[in-house]
Amino acid sequence: MTSAYFDKHREKLDAAVAASASREYYSAYDESPSPRVYGETAAGEGKAAFEAWLGQAFPSETPGSDGTVSTERSPFGFDLGVTYPRARDVDALMGAARAGMKAWRDAGPEARVGVSIEILERLHARVFELANAVQHTSGQAFVMAFQAGGAHALDRALEAVAYAWVEMTRTPRTAVWEKPAPRPGGAPLKMEKTFTVVPRGVALVIGCTTFPTWNSWPGLFASLVTGNAVVVKPHPSAVLPLAITVQACKEVLAEAGFDPHLVTLAAEDPADKLASALALRPEVRLIDYTGGNAFGDWLEKNASQATVFTEKAGVNTVVIDSTSDFEAMCANLAFSFALYTGQMCTAPQNVYLPAAGVGTDEGTKTPAEVAAGIGAAFDRLLGDDARAVELLGGIVNDGVLSRLEQAGSRGEVYVASRTVTHPAYPDATVRTPTIIGLTAADAEVYETECFGPVAYLITTADTAESISLFGSTVLAHGAMTAAVYSTSDEVVAGMRDAALDAGVALSENLLGGVFVNQSAAYSDFHGTGANPAANASYTDGAYVASRFRIVQSRRHVD
Amino acid sequence: MTSAYFDKHREKLDAAVAASASREYYSAYDESPSPRVYGETAAGEGKAAFEAWLGQAFPSETPGSDGTVSTERSPFGFDLGVTYPRARDVDALMGAARAGMKAWRDAGPEARVGVSIEILERLHARVFELANAVQHTSGQAFVMAFQAGGAHALDRALEAVAYAWVEMTRTPRTAVWEKPAPRPGGAPLKMEKTFTVVPRGVALVIGCTTFPTWNSWPGLFASLVTGNAVVVKPHPSAVLPLAITVQACKEVLAEAGFDPHLVTLAAEDPADKLASALALRPEVRLIDYTGGNAFGDWLEKNASQATVFTEKAGVNTVVIDSTSDFEAMCANLAFSFALYTGQMCTAPQNVYLPAAGVGTDEGTKTPAEVAAGIGAAFDRLLGDDARAVELLGGIVNDGVLSRLEQAGSRGEVYVASRTVTHPAYPDATVRTPTIIGLTAADAEVYETECFGPVAYLITTADTAESISLFGSTVLAHGAMTAAVYSTSDEVVAGMRDAALDAGVALSENLLGGVFVNQSAAYSDFHGTGANPAANASYTDGAYVASRFRIVQSRRHVD
Repeated sequence: MTSAYFDKHREKLDAAVAASASREYYSAYDESPSPRVYGETAAGEGKAAFEAWLGQAFPSETPGSDGTVSTERSPFGFDLGVTYPRARDVDALMGAARAGMKAWRDAGPEARVGVSIEILERLHARVFELANAVQHTSGQAFVMAFQAGGAHALDRALEAVAYAWVEMTRTPRTAVWEKPAPRPGGAPLKMEKTFTVVPRGVALVIGCTTFPTWNSWPGLFASLVTGNAVVVKPHPSAVLPLAITVQACKEVLAEAGFDPHLVTLAAEDPADKLASALALRPEVRLIDYTGGNAFGDWLEKNASQATVFTEKAGVNTVVIDSTSDFEAMCANLAFSFALYTGQMCTAPQNVYLPAAGVGTDEGTKTPAEVAAGIGAAFDRLLGDDARAVELLGGIVNDGVLSRLEQAGSRGEVYVASRTVTHPAYPDATVRTPTIIGLTAADAEVYETECFGPVAYLITTADTAESISLFGSTVLAHGAMTAAVYSTSDEVVAGMRDAALDAGVALSENLLGGVFVNQSAAYSDFHGTGANPAANASYTDGAYVASRFRIVQSRRHVD
Repeated sequence: MTSAYFDKHREKLDAAVAASASREYYSAYDESPSPRVYGETAAGEGKAAFEAWLGQAFPSETPGSDGTVSTERSPFGFDLGVTYPRARDVDALMGAARAGMKAWRDAGPEARVGVSIEILERLHARVFELANAVQHTSGQAFVMAFQAGGAHALDRALEAVAYAWVEMTRTPRTAVWEKPAPRPGGAPLKMEKTFTVVPRGVALVIGCTTFPTWNSWPGLFASLVTGNAVVVKPHPSAVLPLAITVQACKEVLAEAGFDPHLVTLAAEDPADKLASALALRPEVRLIDYTGGNAFGDWLEKNASQATVFTEKAGVNTVVIDSTSDFEAMCANLAFSFALYTGQMCTAPQNVYLPAAGVGTDEGTKTPAEVAAGIGAAFDRLLGDDARAVELLGGIVNDGVLSRLEQAGSRGEVYVASRTVTHPAYPDATVRTPTIIGLTAADAEVYETECFGPVAYLITTADTAESISLFGSTVLAHGAMTAAVYSTSDEVVAGMRDAALDAGVALSENLLGGVFVNQSAAYSDFHGTGANPAANASYTDGAYVASRFRIVQSRRHVD
């Protein structure tokens, strides 16, 4: 059965491997939730499947659990009321996680890849259910939840599996080594060697609220496919998407004859501090974390028994020097600020531009005029509440709201945030972004991440200062993304160089349907690992290579 | 010039890449010091070059140095008297190391690979000089110093370069990504993307006494070729081999137009505690360490700003169940114990065998008879002092000698150590190995590494207990190597399984010219990273992948 899964998914695997090598366009999971793609009934059935969980006990068996927790409230204004087993006895959980590892190891890379992609198929079959679950935990609007939380997350997971497959198979299973005799006529030394991929141990995946699937699946599948057991510790506010994920994992593992506890759900009450307890366990040798800097830094420093992959926070930056299309630039930036109310680790925050203004096809635009241009783009994009909510989604927690409310006191309010009424969910908290004017002297404001719908327009002496501030801020505080607008090849080259120095990915002159906060699986790396915002990247060799080891045996042969 | 180096060495690079993928036999540097290979004058010239350093100031410029140190004494009984700049001002050293990194990064993988292999060529041209330097710091006999410290070390370095080359080039330099329009007739999204390999920062290589080149070069070249600057901190007792290495690096870097301070020598007085001062510097992002567990564990726990690769110590194990050739088994084990007086991180220490004896072609042999068989093999191998010293070399330090002298009190002395007189170096301390009889109950003795010429024959109830003790000891205390002797396929399979569980490489029924403590570059992995003896392996993907990051930029194209 396991080799049947591998054969079934071989074509998809090969395509993912090829795309990861060429960095050309590929997607294995259609991002359009249209009935033309997924059928007339899929959306309704997925919504019904999601709603069927509400107020129910999720049927997840977590070894060592005691009692239940119910911790989720939709940013659209209602409690989910789903209960999950509360993970308590960490010894029991670790024991159960490890129990199936030997058989999982011995099954080999092909079997594990087959099972892993079959899990992705099962998740894909539930993509509308997942999209609803992501929407009502993260606050993403539905289409974004379907794409970022469903199709794109599946592509990122397949990408991780593809990288792990390449890495596991670059050493052959067996080889014959024959060393010639030192003198002619002597007998050569001839040995047969066997190379086996062995796992590191238990892998811990610590999920976040805003992208419970997209940010958790790459690490989960990279660790699982390389032979490790995976304990999934969701954020208490976004459990359901990962509970469904774990359910699909267990289902396929059991069908293929493996121990379903190779993947377990470790739900908690926020007061349980379960993540830190799990992270220091000696059995835990891999940790994937997405979230705030404080706990990410703590993990990097304290979980020294494990290899730790973190995606934390940073200060994403745009340098505006000049543009050939002012309106398109403003529209592009407005979309990037507005998408999911700026609650993305990739959303731009700091926009540096010369106080004297930037050259455009509409003449020189002062900082105030650039702000007004973006504000006008907001009006076009977000002027209608019913349309606005499909882009903005809901405010995910009170922290975002309070940062937004305090932002106005920190500088000049160029564009104020507007309260939007959600036609379907009147209790949802929906806001448009605000744009705040600062100067280069306001470092104590703009050198801190203000996660949410707050953008700073920061005036500088000139573009050289903008680039310099970009570089120093990212080196010190990190960034997931950067962008530049300039019609000067020289400025773009200078910015490219500064981005290499700062270790951050750069988008140049985005004027159309690509946005700085979006990355495409198989082609764009998400995070670099080269600045303080993240110590890893989706997905490069370093993301998968240390998730397993190779153990060899050798013997003489004739 | 740099692309000329790449072209010049392309064939060697390709052969190393191919061998690393096939794990078949390959060597780029002849291991025979014979005049037929290296010419009639090479050996004499190399010895003269070595002797010319004695008592001299080594012409190495170390930024931030103040005064000199002279810390080396040959285990063959004389002071080297070479003085080196004493590294003192770490700020200045870090600044100088970083100064050339940008140009080194911008040169790209081809140029860096060309320069790196050219450095290996220069070191190869000085292989006899290096062999003398390794001999008179490590205490290895000359031929071993030539092979392990010269030719094989060069192969391990080239292997690391080959792995890094594959890793750096698996992502193309540029790609065009074209996403089809969602609806027929729409315009696709088309972007050009640039991917650049960027270094992590300053790399620190911390050398050891016993294998100053073999254990330092893989990390040094893996870090250098991926764009990092490298600070080489040699063990105070083995500076010269790495001083020569750094000299060759600087020579080629300067010739190719790069900053020679990309590789620096940081010699110290042992009281300076330079390694720990360097290891915690924020500029240091990569650390390669070979040495004792205490400092290795400290590095793994405390140098959390860096990726740390350690090779520490363990308890290497042999399980004897039965053999088809008693004499050959004894000869093979005797060689492994005797080679370099057991002062190898791969030398076997614990030999488990049933108290009732092992089946052989000469009938059942009791543990005492096995010990006597190995003792007889020692007599053949080491009976003649002049021949013995060419295998044993010299005792590297007093710690080894004192452990050897105390070993007899820990159990039954089956074979006593013998003092050997070196015909050429009468002041050298040369000893043959001792074999001590223990039982399974003596865990407090055999579960600790006793680095040096001490082997324990440990009697067990049966082979099942032997395998069980092997597994539990390695899981708890680590091992670099393991071996099994058995004529039973079932026992070998059981041992293979236990070795996978314990995460250690296994040699099966070695009866000829391959020894458990030797590993062949491109084919055998050295260390696994899967047990406490080492967290890394020479060389797998994990050894190179996190030494650099990929930073991308992207832009629309028509």
